Amino acid sequence: MKHILYISPSRSNLVDGPLRAYLDEVKGPDTQVDIASLSQGPTHLPYYYYEALILPALLHRVEQAEEEGYDAAVIGCFYDPGLRAAREITERIIVTGAAESSLFLAASLGYRFSILVPCEKTIPQMHENVVNYGLVGRLASFESVDLGVLALQQSRAETESRLITAAQRAIHDKRAEVIILGCTREFGFYKKLQEKLGVPVIDSVIAPVKCAELMIELRQRFNWSHSKVCSYKSPPSEEVVGWGLRGRNDTDIWRLNHGSS
Amino acid sequence: MKHILYISPSRSNLVDGPLRAYLDEVKGPDTQVDIASLSQGPTHLPYYYYEALILPALLHRVEQAEEEGYDAAVIGCFYDPGLRAAREITERIIVTGAAESSLFLAASLGYRFSILVPCEKTIPQMHENVVNYGLVGRLASFESVDLGVLALQQSRAETESRLITAAQRAIHDKRAEVIILGCTREFGFYKKLQEKLGVPVIDSVIAPVKCAELMIELRQRFNWSHSKVCSYKSPPSEEVVGWGLRGRNDTDIWRLNHGSS
Amino acid sequence: MKHILYISPSRSNLVDGPLRAYLDEVKGPDTQVDIASLSQGPTHLPYYYYEALILPALLHRVEQAEEEGYDAAVIGCFYDPGLRAAREITERIIVTGAAESSLFLAASLGYRFSILVPCEKTIPQMHENVVNYGLVGRLASFESVDLGVLALQQSRAETESRLITAAQRAIHDKRAEVIILGCTREFGFYKKLQEKLGVPVIDSVIAPVKCAELMIELRQRFNWSHSKVCSYKSPPSEEVVGWGLRGRNDTDIWRLNHGSS
Amino acid sequence: MKHILYISPSRSNLVDGPLRAYLDEVKGPDTQVDIASLSQGPTHLPYYYYEALILPALLHRVEQAEEEGYDAAVIGCFYDPGLRAAREITERIIVTGAAESSLFLAASLGYRFSILVPCEKTIPQMHENVVNYGLVGRLASFESVDLGVLALQQSRAETESRLITAAQRAIHDKRAEVIILGCTREFGFYKKLQEKLGVPVIDSVIAPVKCAELMIELRQRFNWSHSKVCSYKSPPSEEVVGWGLRGRNDTDIWRLNHGSS
Amino acid sequence: MKHILYISPSRSNLVDGPLRAYLDEVKGPDTQVDIASLSQGPTHLPYYYYEALILPALLHRVEQAEEEGYDAAVIGCFYDPGLRAAREITERIIVTGAAESSLFLAASLGYRFSILVPCEKTIPQMHENVVNYGLVGRLASFESVDLGVLALQQSRAETESRLITAAQRAIHDKRAEVIILGCTREFGFYKKLQEKLGVPVIDSVIAPVKCAELMIELRQRFNWSHSKVCSYKSPPSEEVVGWGLRGRNDTDIWRLNHGSS
Amino acid sequence: MKHILYISPSRSNLVDGPLRAYLDEVKGPDTQVDIASLSQGPTHLPYYYYEALILPALLHRVEQAEEEGYDAAVIGCFYDPGLRAAREITERIIVTGAAESSLFLAASLGYRFSILVPCEKTIPQMHENVVNYGLVGRLASFESVDLGVLALQQSRAETESRLITAAQRAIHDKRAEVIILGCTREFGFYKKLQEKLGVPVIDSVIAPVKCAELMIELRQRFNWSHSKVCSYKSPPSEEVVGWGLRGRNDTDIWRLNHGSS
Repeated sequence: MKHILYISPSRSNLVDGPLRAYLDEVKGPDTQVDIASLSQGPTHLPYYYYEALILPALLHRVEQAEEEGYDAAVIGCFYDPGLRAAREITERIIVTGAAESSLFLAASLGYRFSILVPCEKTIPQMHENVVNYGLVGRLASFESVDLGVLALQQSRAETESRLITAAQRAIHDKRAEVIILGCTREFGFYKKLQEKLGVPVIDSVIAPVKCAELMIELRQRFNWSHSKVCSYKSPPSEEVVGWGLRGRNDTDIWRLNHGSS
Repeated sequence: MKHILYISPSRSNLVDGPLRAYLDEVKGPDTQVDIASLSQGPTHLPYYYYEALILPALLHRVEQAEEEGYDAAVIGCFYDPGLRAAREITERIIVTGAAESSLFLAASLGYRFSILVPCEKTIPQMHENVVNYGLVGRLASFESVDLGVLALQQSRAETESRLITAAQRAIHDKRAEVIILGCTREFGFYKKLQEKLGVPVIDSVIAPVKCAELMIELRQRFNWSHSKVCSYKSPPSEEVVGWGLRGRNDTDIWRLNHGSS
Repeated sequence: MKHILYISPSRSNLVDGPLRAYLDEVKGPDTQVDIASLSQGPTHLPYYYYEALILPALLHRVEQAEEEGYDAAVIGCFYDPGLRAAREITERIIVTGAAESSLFLAASLGYRFSILVPCEKTIPQMHENVVNYGLVGRLASFESVDLGVLALQQSRAETESRLITAAQRAIHDKRAEVIILGCTREFGFYKKLQEKLGVPVIDSVIAPVKCAELMIELRQRFNWSHSKVCSYKSPPSEEVVGWGLRGRNDTDIWRLNHGSS
Repeated sequence: MKHILYISPSRSNLVDGPLRAYLDEVKGPDTQVDIASLSQGPTHLPYYYYEALILPALLHRVEQAEEEGYDAAVIGCFYDPGLRAAREITERIIVTGAAESSLFLAASLGYRFSILVPCEKTIPQMHENVVNYGLVGRLASFESVDLGVLALQQSRAETESRLITAAQRAIHDKRAEVIILGCTREFGFYKKLQEKLGVPVIDSVIAPVKCAELMIELRQRFNWSHSKVCSYKSPPSEEVVGWGLRGRNDTDIWRLNHGSS
Repeated sequence: MKHILYISPSRSNLVDGPLRAYLDEVKGPDTQVDIASLSQGPTHLPYYYYEALILPALLHRVEQAEEEGYDAAVIGCFYDPGLRAAREITERIIVTGAAESSLFLAASLGYRFSILVPCEKTIPQMHENVVNYGLVGRLASFESVDLGVLALQQSRAETESRLITAAQRAIHDKRAEVIILGCTREFGFYKKLQEKLGVPVIDSVIAPVKCAELMIELRQRFNWSHSKVCSYKSPPSEEVVGWGLRGRNDTDIWRLNHGSS
Repeated sequence: MKHILYISPSRSNLVDGPLRAYLDEVKGPDTQVDIASLSQGPTHLPYYYYEALILPALLHRVEQAEEEGYDAAVIGCFYDPGLRAAREITERIIVTGAAESSLFLAASLGYRFSILVPCEKTIPQMHENVVNYGLVGRLASFESVDLGVLALQQSRAETESRLITAAQRAIHDKRAEVIILGCTREFGFYKKLQEKLGVPVIDSVIAPVKCAELMIELRQRFNWSHSKVCSYKSPPSEEVVGWGLRGRNDTDIWRLNHGSS
């Protein structure tokens, strides 16, 4: 059995309904996916500031997940906030991110991909991630659907229609071969889009869960895990403990929705 | 059950023994991995020429695998010969390559990786693949162990010793955080290296098999498969049939070793 | 006297007429250009698969050309199939490719160039060649004329009109200063386009022939030839002979049209 | 008069002595530089985790500085933590970072620069910043002096000796023309190094203060300030207020050392 | 007091009126900016040829400025002609360029910038400068206003209108966050544009003057000046003198307009 | 008959002896190569300043060559000074440069090349040319022989020995497959080096002459010449004449050595 904690680093009641059901539906048969989401704070993360605010709590939640015995933590936001820090402070647990997983899968499925984002504000930071992950040569375009993150799951017909328009623009004008839904709040739309468009459409909630399942197996069987040399070398516990860095109670602000096993 | 055909596009009696056992050991519980290998032709592929020679047969073997109902074909050579062509001529089957899979896994496990290759001759072509896959910014170095491909499994103690030396050079002098064994004939060495070195060591036989297992699941459940738009668009069957392109009997030169299920 | 074998790696009766006459017209006074073309197989090469199919025969034809005493072989396809392998397996003969030659000439004639291609399918592979040859910083755009390769010489008025439209788009909207005809089947159109457009238009049949003439002279007089160190190091003949790699009779499928001297 | 808040986002008693004196010495005549430093938490920031921990407090300190009427905030850490977020959440105040300022100055003073860092752990993140700031083509090398951040000002003779050795390696072996001291704790060493080495040595405490002074003038006189379109667009105050994001009292953990005017 | 020589390397009577007044208006309180401009030769520099023609005189004028005791020379043309040569032949004087200064400031103010140029002819050379300065990843676009350089200050209403149109295209279609006026003859328009557009608009006359003021201070106080190692190493005076290189009287062709102090 | 003017843009008595003989030896049978060299001014060009000084005279010499009926001008310096300006101001004449020609030939002969330069001072500018020509991905290294330009032909045994040492370092340590002699004063050494090293060694005097011969033929037969759109668009003659730009008598400083035909 693989235990995954899907961390939705914002506040949303989707976690009680659609997202909860969705993760149960997409997970592997031997996997249980619990959801941790914020009980306070921002309901979406399009700003650097919001991301910074939730970062310490996010990292402590990953640490706690390692202590609780989870095999993997998924950072459920397309900015991949804290991805490297989370790998740095843990020893055993796998950490995947929505963007990193989606990009690597997309690059295996076609030559160039386009990323559909809620609004233009998000593009510079995401672009930099694409550069840093090394895949800018495969990027056909970013396409904005010009909708607030919160609207994405509320007016689903409108969202779907705009995603299709944006994807068609990407495919016909920019020669995209794969579409990535560049926000975890765009979950669930991939099926309809795929039927309409005839190209693979990567859902960025599913991608990091499935990559996590793979990487759990790789760790368990081949001991392949995040390298602890250089980039992800852990801080010394005498500093972390001595300076009281973990004394903050910011893990209280997380809610947990258990998944079915 | 997932059926994978591991294609070793050269001639080698390793397929009857060590490689056969190895694949049975590393595959998933619901997977059967058969091995197709050449019964004639080159015993290794360090030359562009050898690669070109085996390419038509390799592609027809992938096509046949699709017809036989395999879920995935693994191209078991670190040059990834024919990877794109194989995705182009097939409709349903997943195709993974030793290099592409290893690179994407390595990039998820650390910041920079080094690739250990048998000899310098192989570096320019592999370097170009790293560039084309987009990961050159993550490449710490290539390190040659200066051994013929055929020697790798024959004098295993020598190979192991040289791989360790090369890996240490990469880690200490080039700041590599992950090691990739850049030849499928370097299979099996990852465990010892990992113990010695304390960093993840990616075995390029295991990587594409596990990625294939993941991608089979992704296709079966989410219909994510190679995009058939633009890059991997299939040739029209009236041309393929009309011009007798598949009439060649070059699939006769493949041997098959069944895997355990 | 320079003897060049222009290899058209597909099946086409253009070799008996227009292409034959064209090469006689464009060659240097001391040059004889023979044409080798396929008597069976694909009539065009827009697919990775077709390219792979003709590769072994293409390489053996280059080898045979070296034995027959040709000074150079031209690979007459804008994908430059087998260019590196051909340089690897030969010792003395010069090998040029339609794309490599056209790109280097274009880069000497202006700052940025656009490449006019028959259809979008060809762009990803050609783009990768531009990257690998190092000239992506000089690429203004690819422009597709959306015509099948076979149609290019059949409906010449239509082809010409579409090429002009595409080139004007490149010059006015993308700031191209030089146009490259990105398919050897677009031969002969350069003159009219050049008159209309007022910029140099590189014909990718002429370019590799003239580069071959130059490089023959460079080899004869200065001994500058393909480096046999690392990338183009030849496979050992004991392997090639011992494994029967050249035993295949695939050079039978070539036709030869002698050029005038 | 220009009011600058130099934020040292860690805990250090250097702020009461050497750093306090240093800033008074290097500031412009019309400038007052106050220092904000942490009264609790990490004493250095070589880990992603430590950086994440101080980020919310750092950003709120910048916000408070804007309210208090400061003209600029300097982020006094060579990782430039929170640089973009700080520009996003403020409207008027200038924000500079140790790395961004040092890199742009160095690029104006010579062709290639090397960055001397305390230890190898810091290199991957800094390298990514160099890439993101666009100056990787000017980077000669990173050189580690292999000293803990805390040791830098404690054993100054040792530090100086190691910095000189590292700089000479950079100049002679990597063709560096300018040296950047890639840690704000390396302040004060630039003079001796400059005399010894004969090349400019950029002190990363001075650089962002002087850039701040320039940018304050540019804002005051020409209204050039951080663009509030796209990347640095501020979050809506109804969200920030409505969700209680600023209710956290994390600005209590800052100490203030007033500078002389 | 800082003495700056603003070198307008072309012939223009703007130096007696608007530009003279403009520099007095924008300089710092302790600065005097004199203007040197050509009394003969080209009135603008859109051609490589014109640039080459004025280069020796420009460099000798910088040398003379050093002898006359100026603290800095500003090269007042967006091509930055002779920037590196001027730093090479001088020892003490600071040399700034319109493009280098504008680009580094723009990169500190937003993520991506667009450069508004008089005509398309100038783009290839400027693009190469952007690449060489390392900021091509931050370039949103070049936008041409399609006006001769000389027309820019003559029909100011027309110029302003075209600059606004071009800037809006950059902001809305290319996601530019900062605008750079890519010609020193576009001076003075930044204010109106800024009001209309709501983003910072960098004036490339102001930028290098303010950067010069900063760098003068840096040299005076911290001895940070152009590195004389490798790139900017001066030619030996025995050659310069012995070969009579400075004997040419080309500094006669400069006029001087004194600035107010 | 092809008439080429080889412009050695410095002062040297090599033009009366060794270089004169060399060009007669290497030119094609239908070619006459005259040499223009300076009768005054610098004897070598390792400094930006010297390059700037000779630039106007160099360009006027190219213009005069066009008027005198030469078919091509070769810029005989590895910096390619004035290459673009010369193409801009002329209409018919072909202009080649030592570096551009050598780089494109080298890239056709092997995967990676190293450039042997007289001294480190020259590397930054040459590196930028390699980047601008697009071939930085093929650059293995620069290797300095640490000899003054003037010494190269004086102590030939020493030069040869250092060139061999540097080339071996490039081949064995940096995986260079082709060597470029990165200074025109290194002419004549290629033969011995080639014998010793077993890889092609490009002589940068020969390369641009042979490329000029090719491009003359391309212009004469196919009307392929430098594009006069955008980058190389000529300045209007009313400006050039009206402003007296060509009135300068700087073509008097050129000597001419006629070549044999």
